[in-house]
Amino acid sequence: MSNPTQKPTLENTQLKDIVAHAKEYGFVFPSSEIYDGLAAVYDYGPNGVELKNNLKRLWWEAMTQLNPNVVGIDAAIFMHPLTWHASGHVAGFNDPLIDNLDSKKRYRADVLVEEKAAQYENNGEVERAQELLQHLGRLLTDNDLAGVKQLIIDEKITCPVSGTGNWTDVRQFNLMFSTQGSAVESDAAQIYLRPETAQGIFVNFLNVQKSARMKVPFGIAQIGKAFRNEIVARQFIFRMREFEQMEMQFFVRPGTEMEWYQQWKETRRRWHEALGLPSAKLRFHDHEKLAHYANAAVDIEFEFPFGFKEIEGIHSRTDFDLTQHQELSKKKQQYFDADVNPETGKPYGNYVPYVVETSVGADRLFLATLCNAYTEETLTEGEGEAQQTKQRTYLKLHPAVAPIKAAIFPLVRKDGLPEKAQQIFDELRHDFRIIMEERDAIGKRYTRQDLIGTPFCIAVDHQTLEDETVTVRHRDSREQTRMPIAELRQYIGQAVSFRRIFEQL
Amino acid sequence: MSNPTQKPTLENTQLKDIVAHAKEYGFVFPSSEIYDGLAAVYDYGPNGVELKNNLKRLWWEAMTQLNPNVVGIDAAIFMHPLTWHASGHVAGFNDPLIDNLDSKKRYRADVLVEEKAAQYENNGEVERAQELLQHLGRLLTDNDLAGVKQLIIDEKITCPVSGTGNWTDVRQFNLMFSTQGSAVESDAAQIYLRPETAQGIFVNFLNVQKSARMKVPFGIAQIGKAFRNEIVARQFIFRMREFEQMEMQFFVRPGTEMEWYQQWKETRRRWHEALGLPSAKLRFHDHEKLAHYANAAVDIEFEFPFGFKEIEGIHSRTDFDLTQHQELSKKKQQYFDADVNPETGKPYGNYVPYVVETSVGADRLFLATLCNAYTEETLTEGEGEAQQTKQRTYLKLHPAVAPIKAAIFPLVRKDGLPEKAQQIFDELRHDFRIIMEERDAIGKRYTRQDLIGTPFCIAVDHQTLEDETVTVRHRDSREQTRMPIAELRQYIGQAVSFRRIFEQL
Repeated sequence: MSNPTQKPTLENTQLKDIVAHAKEYGFVFPSSEIYDGLAAVYDYGPNGVELKNNLKRLWWEAMTQLNPNVVGIDAAIFMHPLTWHASGHVAGFNDPLIDNLDSKKRYRADVLVEEKAAQYENNGEVERAQELLQHLGRLLTDNDLAGVKQLIIDEKITCPVSGTGNWTDVRQFNLMFSTQGSAVESDAAQIYLRPETAQGIFVNFLNVQKSARMKVPFGIAQIGKAFRNEIVARQFIFRMREFEQMEMQFFVRPGTEMEWYQQWKETRRRWHEALGLPSAKLRFHDHEKLAHYANAAVDIEFEFPFGFKEIEGIHSRTDFDLTQHQELSKKKQQYFDADVNPETGKPYGNYVPYVVETSVGADRLFLATLCNAYTEETLTEGEGEAQQTKQRTYLKLHPAVAPIKAAIFPLVRKDGLPEKAQQIFDELRHDFRIIMEERDAIGKRYTRQDLIGTPFCIAVDHQTLEDETVTVRHRDSREQTRMPIAELRQYIGQAVSFRRIFEQL
Repeated sequence: MSNPTQKPTLENTQLKDIVAHAKEYGFVFPSSEIYDGLAAVYDYGPNGVELKNNLKRLWWEAMTQLNPNVVGIDAAIFMHPLTWHASGHVAGFNDPLIDNLDSKKRYRADVLVEEKAAQYENNGEVERAQELLQHLGRLLTDNDLAGVKQLIIDEKITCPVSGTGNWTDVRQFNLMFSTQGSAVESDAAQIYLRPETAQGIFVNFLNVQKSARMKVPFGIAQIGKAFRNEIVARQFIFRMREFEQMEMQFFVRPGTEMEWYQQWKETRRRWHEALGLPSAKLRFHDHEKLAHYANAAVDIEFEFPFGFKEIEGIHSRTDFDLTQHQELSKKKQQYFDADVNPETGKPYGNYVPYVVETSVGADRLFLATLCNAYTEETLTEGEGEAQQTKQRTYLKLHPAVAPIKAAIFPLVRKDGLPEKAQQIFDELRHDFRIIMEERDAIGKRYTRQDLIGTPFCIAVDHQTLEDETVTVRHRDSREQTRMPIAELRQYIGQAVSFRRIFEQL
């Protein structure tokens, strides 16, 4: 989706390369592209879906398989509408929007003011920028929408498309999509598309605790789609209207939440590092202003080409959600803790647990992984006068998340080499996602696998027929090693298994 | 959701047991249950999500990993609205509904008539039943809704709740849920929630073919949610308003579609059998009436407690969808086939491929798997006077799809047995989803694992400390075998791997 207020910068040029790469090599396509796309919606292509599935599985297994006290669920996107009254989304999940009457373009009013402040800052007027942001903050806190409009007029903010200051009033728009369950008359009329997966966990808290016999502290993990009617949808798949979350809500005894908050903060950062995001490109960012339900909140940010941005949030949500559901549903959301409190000598007894949440944007993690893997390098080949330089682009993806684990190449399409390659393919395909490529020169075939991040290329040549060995070419180093066919399964298996990642956690 | 027209039968009693089991042991919960549920929507619990994920992965890998000519995608639920004009869903995806004015209950008019016909048939009036169905068929073909209402009046069909024949007119309701993309004014106003995943594949046909360099014949596989505003939502998760499909569209040269149709029919049936659905409970059911886009269609049906019902459809969809998209988008949806046609001596050239579709309902497959696994048996224990019988319920799930692969039990909570069990747990949890249970008598612990279908229980006893062996108890036979700890990883690994299933395909 084009955004008229977004200026092209050096960083956006690099993002543009990645967007083009993602489309050409089957990672991400614009949604319904033959109909000129749908704003802020994207589809994952053949390599994209494999990369994304690997990331999702890696998160899922790290959460629910490695931790004996975390189990999963998969709640539906449709939930009872009262859920969103309890969570506060019906009343408060709004963006202040404003339309320009000449261009008919719609903007987030707060973002227009923030961009003005950024201009002041770029011009060295730091104090003026800060004053403007503080003024905006006060107006938003008071929900003074007329005040926000007046600020836009006073600051002479104009529409980047029409260039005029001919604005409508500022209005609040709820970000939830809704639909009608009208076919069943007795049914609740309005159904929301969930704007977050977290509430699917909260309403199932007791069902899960009882059926899986969990003892506090324990966690419930979930991967699923969520939907937000975003006006500022930009930066490719970073902010979409349909997106996927990987959330875990960890239920703890009240008063212990800060220990668990600290622990999950560190655990989650280690996880990102273990799958290849470098420490230097990750940072914690504490929230300056806490949401109404939180008593502590931090983002794990990754350095995208467009700057450090959130890929995961860790929030101490207190007992806000469970208490709200308890009040609205009139059903007790309590846990009986039989452990003995050393201060009283009696069991801790009944309480509404506190919650520490870890929430990853799966699409953002995908984009971070892709940006981090995207590598352009200049190679020097040959010696003396024959020396020449050549560009190479490759994706240095962790083998465990690479879409294709190995490509098998018969050197030539004769002399029984394709048949031998087929044998190896048939043996390995039960265990790994591999492909066989017979077309084109072998150098071209290597290049193609580099572009999609395949860690190993296996060449079958005439020597293979004699001694049952192949060459294995390594993506990052471009080194080639000779290896018996019989060792391939174990060699690839070790490189691509999640085990190596899990052992670092 | 209760359905007033559904009579309790022996079969439904068995379904009732399975529904209760699914809730109690964490497989399936009613959605938003604390708010008294949402009609025809369900959530998957801790064991349910693992079972479902295993089924999904087994399908995905059988499709995209075993077949070199099938690749995957993951298209968004939101698509450009023109997609659904092209597919025919906006114009024709309707159900004829009727309301009873006294009870305010809404029904599918055609289903009311069908149920009347079933009554005749049960009373031995077979001819009268057939005539009624034929009459209904003619009215529906002519879209004669007034005629359908007259038929309901003539047949004296009454509302099962109010008992009256006080009906509204029959009206067509579109089954698609829709929502508004109103935050972005320039955007298409109405967005549908996709009623099938297939169109996400068709609109991406060329993007996939080009980026993954596919040659016809080739397939595109996808797993994802779809939504239908069903009025007759019944039989637990068999027919839900939000459900998941596993679809593969296979693109072929026109004229070859019937060969591929036959081939996929057999391949798909073998897949169901390989993962444990018995041949006797599966059958093909040819469609009597073909959809407007199909030239052949068959269902794979499974024998549920409520009768043989579709779990997968295989359809020869011709070039209907691609041609429709080509016309509406004005973008050619053609493939250049360089293979030489032996009849003309020239390449086949450009054409719109024909499509053979295989479409599994993931939730239906889940229910079939659960129904098939649910086993009640009477055990005879002891000899002579001490002989007694005992009931046992267990899930005889294929180990590859079981939610938990193994449970580790220290026989007692002392003498270092829990520590030894923990060691084994820590070694195996990097590879398998396993749990450790220390509480309760060992018999009770076995029972609990039987109820969720865990194939192996590993008991750690005093002998373990001496000779590094454990007993492995097998779920179905209840037999116990002694095994070295060092062999567990390979033993469990072989039993739960997909490889054994893949080798049967």
